[in-house]
Amino acid sequence: MPGKRTERNAMTRIPRNKVIYSFNPRHEPAATVKLGELVSIETEDAFGGQIKNEKNSVETLDWSKVDGATGPVFIENAKPGDTLIVEILDIDVPNEGVIVTVPKYGILGEKRFKPSTKLVRINRNYIHFEKVQVRKKPMIGTIGVTPKSEVPCGSLGKHGGNMDVKELTAGTKLYLPVFVEGALFAAGDLHATQADGELCVSAVEVPGEILLRFDLRKGESPQWPVLETNDSYAFLTCGETLDEAVRNAAEAAVEAFMREYGWPFETAYMLASLAVNLEINQVVDPKKGARAVISKDLISLDSLLV
Amino acid sequence: MPGKRTERNAMTRIPRNKVIYSFNPRHEPAATVKLGELVSIETEDAFGGQIKNEKNSVETLDWSKVDGATGPVFIENAKPGDTLIVEILDIDVPNEGVIVTVPKYGILGEKRFKPSTKLVRINRNYIHFEKVQVRKKPMIGTIGVTPKSEVPCGSLGKHGGNMDVKELTAGTKLYLPVFVEGALFAAGDLHATQADGELCVSAVEVPGEILLRFDLRKGESPQWPVLETNDSYAFLTCGETLDEAVRNAAEAAVEAFMREYGWPFETAYMLASLAVNLEINQVVDPKKGARAVISKDLISLDSLLV
Repeated sequence: MPGKRTERNAMTRIPRNKVIYSFNPRHEPAATVKLGELVSIETEDAFGGQIKNEKNSVETLDWSKVDGATGPVFIENAKPGDTLIVEILDIDVPNEGVIVTVPKYGILGEKRFKPSTKLVRINRNYIHFEKVQVRKKPMIGTIGVTPKSEVPCGSLGKHGGNMDVKELTAGTKLYLPVFVEGALFAAGDLHATQADGELCVSAVEVPGEILLRFDLRKGESPQWPVLETNDSYAFLTCGETLDEAVRNAAEAAVEAFMREYGWPFETAYMLASLAVNLEINQVVDPKKGARAVISKDLISLDSLLV
Repeated sequence: MPGKRTERNAMTRIPRNKVIYSFNPRHEPAATVKLGELVSIETEDAFGGQIKNEKNSVETLDWSKVDGATGPVFIENAKPGDTLIVEILDIDVPNEGVIVTVPKYGILGEKRFKPSTKLVRINRNYIHFEKVQVRKKPMIGTIGVTPKSEVPCGSLGKHGGNMDVKELTAGTKLYLPVFVEGALFAAGDLHATQADGELCVSAVEVPGEILLRFDLRKGESPQWPVLETNDSYAFLTCGETLDEAVRNAAEAAVEAFMREYGWPFETAYMLASLAVNLEINQVVDPKKGARAVISKDLISLDSLLV
């Protein structure tokens, strides 16, 4: 589905046939990379490229090929207890993407509706959806490291995974706790655009190519993945319900303020109520995802990594 | 607590002693106003002005004087089934505000902590909180009309009420369904600033003065209160859980797209997944509040009022 590609200046390039369906400490690395080098990763779309036209509904899919990620990437010198820093330099998506509805899925899954598939054109700035345009904002749906025991790439947790955070775009950094030797990083499930919530269970699903660079903080690790944008940090949390996900995000933020300022709980709790925005990543997976967004004016990176 | 005040050019001025603790169809109007005239409403803070210093914890309060609003205002010609349009022209807050923690309350209410009270200075642009500054953004916590049967001013629902929406600032408009003759509008519980979530249960609580103007759309009414900002509309919903609040917001948005474009459910569901941001108002009242934010590029006001 992606158009013609030109070579990048990546030192390591990982093709999209290096696909895994779980983060598993026993997986053989697809590649080993050094800190600071450029790493280009090709990815399949969430459906493993199986949807070729609007007659391919999700009911016709081989589900063993859904929700894959490319990897795992062994990062030299990454040890359990470190923080893996993933700098997202570029996300390249093709000029076509897929959106689906799946009966019983999404936040309105209890309503009666049909499986349906829509192919949309993507140009430089917009997604063309029927008669309207939606701004293009390419993001990475699945990005994470390997936990101590195997988890499917379609799930999410403290290791990252299928977090579906619309702010995980080019120009941001992700801080992930390292659980196993080499971190065993993987990424996939790009979206050409997605709103907070991803409410029908699908965004504009695309294959593509991402350009990354890795770094490490040795001997310290965040409680939850941390996203850094130009002006804020955010804890990326999850829970069985959205209420639980949001509670976990709030707790992480309050504890970070306690570390930053040496305050008692009460003072940190107050400041969080004034200045920490609780926001929604997605509400449609078995685990719901939220984020606690804190301005860089109020917190330092050191207080986010325990 | 508010400083010296100058007269405004309001035609109708409602003083803060016109306080009510419930929206009740039987309350006598505090004032009757015409469409288009300026209305200035003074408000008490959420504690009824009882907290004078940091030794006044919430445990010492007369709770019958908490969570009041000023009103009710009878709007001429407002009938059940209409939409009351509330234009928020100005929100004036004093140079001091109160923040509290209340044991068992807030999103981390299960933790052990003490009742505490903090008075903070507010200047032109910032709240001074300990050694940090938080940007001032005055907003209206409680704003609504009277439903068919009595509800406390501290609760929220389709009539509005204690919604605690940080975007309810000067320069926005609120569309409320009218349930009773004259709408019987009231407002109170100003915050000098609050983050999405209001996670400790208190924002920077202040008395103050708001300048409003009312208008009507006859014979049509939104399913939920609708907030209009410069570039977006948002349904303001609630539920017993945040998951339920967010589901109600998503449903309202999808139905609005179906009306706007004449699409089947599936198509509207898809577009909402790409373009409707599910956001959080507050997570700390018995009913949780959320919003579905839709760009004005994608929806017209007509499709938001059924």
